Amino acid sequence: MNTRPRRMILATFIHNSGAHPGGWRYGASAGADQHDVQHYVRLVKKAEEGKLHCYFSGDQQGLPYIKGADAYAATDYAGKLEPTTLLAALAMVTSDIGLIGTVSTTYNEPYAVARRIASLDHITRGRAGWNVVTSAGASEARNFGAEDLMDHDLRYERAEEFVDVVKHLWDSWADDAVLRDKAAGRYFDPAKLRQLNHRGRFFNVAGPLNVGRPPQGHPVIVQAGGSGPGRALSARTADMIFTAQSSKDKGQAFYADMKARATAFGRDPAHLAVIPSVQLMVRSTEAEARAAEEELLELIPDALAWSTLCMQMGFDFGAAGYGPDDHMPDIPLTNGGQWVQQELMRIARADNLTLGQLARRATVSRASFAMAGTPEHVADTLEDWFRSGAADGFSLSPNYQPGGLDDFVDQVVPILQRRGLFRTDYEGATLRDNLGLPRPANSFAADPSLGAEPDLWA
Amino acid sequence: MNTRPRRMILATFIHNSGAHPGGWRYGASAGADQHDVQHYVRLVKKAEEGKLHCYFSGDQQGLPYIKGADAYAATDYAGKLEPTTLLAALAMVTSDIGLIGTVSTTYNEPYAVARRIASLDHITRGRAGWNVVTSAGASEARNFGAEDLMDHDLRYERAEEFVDVVKHLWDSWADDAVLRDKAAGRYFDPAKLRQLNHRGRFFNVAGPLNVGRPPQGHPVIVQAGGSGPGRALSARTADMIFTAQSSKDKGQAFYADMKARATAFGRDPAHLAVIPSVQLMVRSTEAEARAAEEELLELIPDALAWSTLCMQMGFDFGAAGYGPDDHMPDIPLTNGGQWVQQELMRIARADNLTLGQLARRATVSRASFAMAGTPEHVADTLEDWFRSGAADGFSLSPNYQPGGLDDFVDQVVPILQRRGLFRTDYEGATLRDNLGLPRPANSFAADPSLGAEPDLWA
Repeated sequence: MNTRPRRMILATFIHNSGAHPGGWRYGASAGADQHDVQHYVRLVKKAEEGKLHCYFSGDQQGLPYIKGADAYAATDYAGKLEPTTLLAALAMVTSDIGLIGTVSTTYNEPYAVARRIASLDHITRGRAGWNVVTSAGASEARNFGAEDLMDHDLRYERAEEFVDVVKHLWDSWADDAVLRDKAAGRYFDPAKLRQLNHRGRFFNVAGPLNVGRPPQGHPVIVQAGGSGPGRALSARTADMIFTAQSSKDKGQAFYADMKARATAFGRDPAHLAVIPSVQLMVRSTEAEARAAEEELLELIPDALAWSTLCMQMGFDFGAAGYGPDDHMPDIPLTNGGQWVQQELMRIARADNLTLGQLARRATVSRASFAMAGTPEHVADTLEDWFRSGAADGFSLSPNYQPGGLDDFVDQVVPILQRRGLFRTDYEGATLRDNLGLPRPANSFAADPSLGAEPDLWA
Repeated sequence: MNTRPRRMILATFIHNSGAHPGGWRYGASAGADQHDVQHYVRLVKKAEEGKLHCYFSGDQQGLPYIKGADAYAATDYAGKLEPTTLLAALAMVTSDIGLIGTVSTTYNEPYAVARRIASLDHITRGRAGWNVVTSAGASEARNFGAEDLMDHDLRYERAEEFVDVVKHLWDSWADDAVLRDKAAGRYFDPAKLRQLNHRGRFFNVAGPLNVGRPPQGHPVIVQAGGSGPGRALSARTADMIFTAQSSKDKGQAFYADMKARATAFGRDPAHLAVIPSVQLMVRSTEAEARAAEEELLELIPDALAWSTLCMQMGFDFGAAGYGPDDHMPDIPLTNGGQWVQQELMRIARADNLTLGQLARRATVSRASFAMAGTPEHVADTLEDWFRSGAADGFSLSPNYQPGGLDDFVDQVVPILQRRGLFRTDYEGATLRDNLGLPRPANSFAADPSLGAEPDLWA
């Protein structure tokens, strides 16, 4: 299937004004209006100029919990455009880049999600992806009628069934179901529509979907869960994994684990791309990079750092009597994002950090790999991870926007291209083409025992 | 508020290839690919060239039920792009026209809908509208875990609460909540966010919404329900009503009823626009119009007409022993769209139609007013309805697309403009401005006893 030389996959993550919590205060170009679609138009066009594979919109279905109104006032990430509408808009100002949106399996129904992502795939002519999340925020639960977050493992059990139903719904129509035969008066061939009649633990869904098969067959499935159930879901159903890995060693272990898990599911491990996120600051000299990093650190208010730590750990250290000068106590894992919690505990103990030090570190990197340096240094590091079994590519999170993406595209991409590590143009028409992923066969065509003729005309 | 002379509101309805079930077979320009966004780009640009107020995307969350696979094969309306993603895409190729999308209150959660429509309002810079539907299709219910359709009146009770929650969520942020004060490090003023803490019969929603207040305050609310509960919902919560009225008399009665209902709710009746739909065929002479109408009728397969009648009446006439030559029996109203059922019964009896004749009539007009004629005749009829208390404007459904919209914009709009009945350019920046509707005050600002400071930072 994939006869091209192995090259890096490069994605870029949308942050309103940058991945760094001080990013919106940094430099002349920062502090953009996060409700203005033109801010994202500028970013996605730059990403496409750099031939990046995809532009990625994370999401929560509520305001992130932040302890303390002062901390809250200091952030730029409370207000955010909804991903599928934002990406549909960006489809019209781009022609090649993939557009990946986050949609929760915990607070949606599979029919509605299948339809919206399929529409996005039609609108983009095959450039859509769906980042499957189970929504770990307690504030999200309370916006959808629940008193508290659904149990972690139960969320993933629901997600497993959800993704399967969505993929089957995408197969409701054969690729050649639309005839548009004006002379014969046949617009469709109804024999080429299949009804799912799914009856499961979480969902009963009849189908068929009321939109034609997506151009990619299945839009690209992305996952980011690092827990056991999260990894299992990714290994079985995903095309690409976004992951936070704080070091190359950890990255290698995760990479090997995911490839082995995919193989165990009978999949070609090359069809599950592992993409660690990298928080980036590119400057002409190492000294400038270091100074910029220091400046950004100074732009984070202390209250925000402390609140972020409490939020990421799911634990109110202040209420439990701990302060910034204390060290990490033994606390139980919560029902939220266990991977991040374990990673922060590991860092705290490995580097013997106080909670105050850990808070600043947590606020800056959120457990993903952070890097500040010259274009050559950044390229060297990415090449090293890529060649040593830690990554198939990277999800770039510039520390400030839109300037940070400019720096990467203008200064780092040409180096990667010269080294033969990154393409000089898009190779195909769809995101799957550009990722070297096969187009999935229609499950109903592959297994006629699945599904039935719709009884809509019974 | 509204000091402009009273002028018509003109909306146009998206049909894949036209409102007429034979439309996709008619002429050279018909039979467009309904999965190709460029088809809709062409249409919306033409509507904007004509200075129309809004472009409207109806929706169902399932395939429409059609009895008989042969009938099914003959239609073009099974596959449809999802409205909010389609309209977000169209936002980027237009600058003035309003974009109204249908989203169901029966199969969604208010937080998700509030957010998606608010995002669309930001992306369009204040040109978004939400058509509130309760989803009358049985095939929809089975895609969302239900065995059968929720009871008609219960659907509307849910819709009443749903719309209230959405409007309150749109008020989560004061208009001036975003500061972006880089020097002081204050991006937001958290005191200007309000938490709803709604606990109702159908929904518990904490809030606040995680996107800023929409440019219009509240995106325009559209409703189309003609039943008692549907009218009550419109009169209390809607800005605009799309309605199917088969004659001017019926239109006048409906118009008077809706204005009276709005007044009874303490509203200015001028702020509830009543917009009957008009199914259109414009030709240079009456003879050509008549011939085109005949040609379209011939393009409808009999099986489709019969199936459409069964679907609209919610009754399988064939299974009950009735054929095309029989007359309408006494049958009970179903749980579906009662307004359409009553209207078809009335037509059948008034014109003494056989079921076969009624089927063709039902398939063509779907109970709305259908008109074929010269540009002058069409303009005369619209003026008559507009001046005689039957309409504040019209929702145009050309019989075939995209040519049918071209005919109206090129030939009828100039006549309406010459008569002073329609504007020659957009007057304002937002859809509300262009409809002469006030921008709603923030409910929390108006009533400080509502809502609370978010406990996200408690």
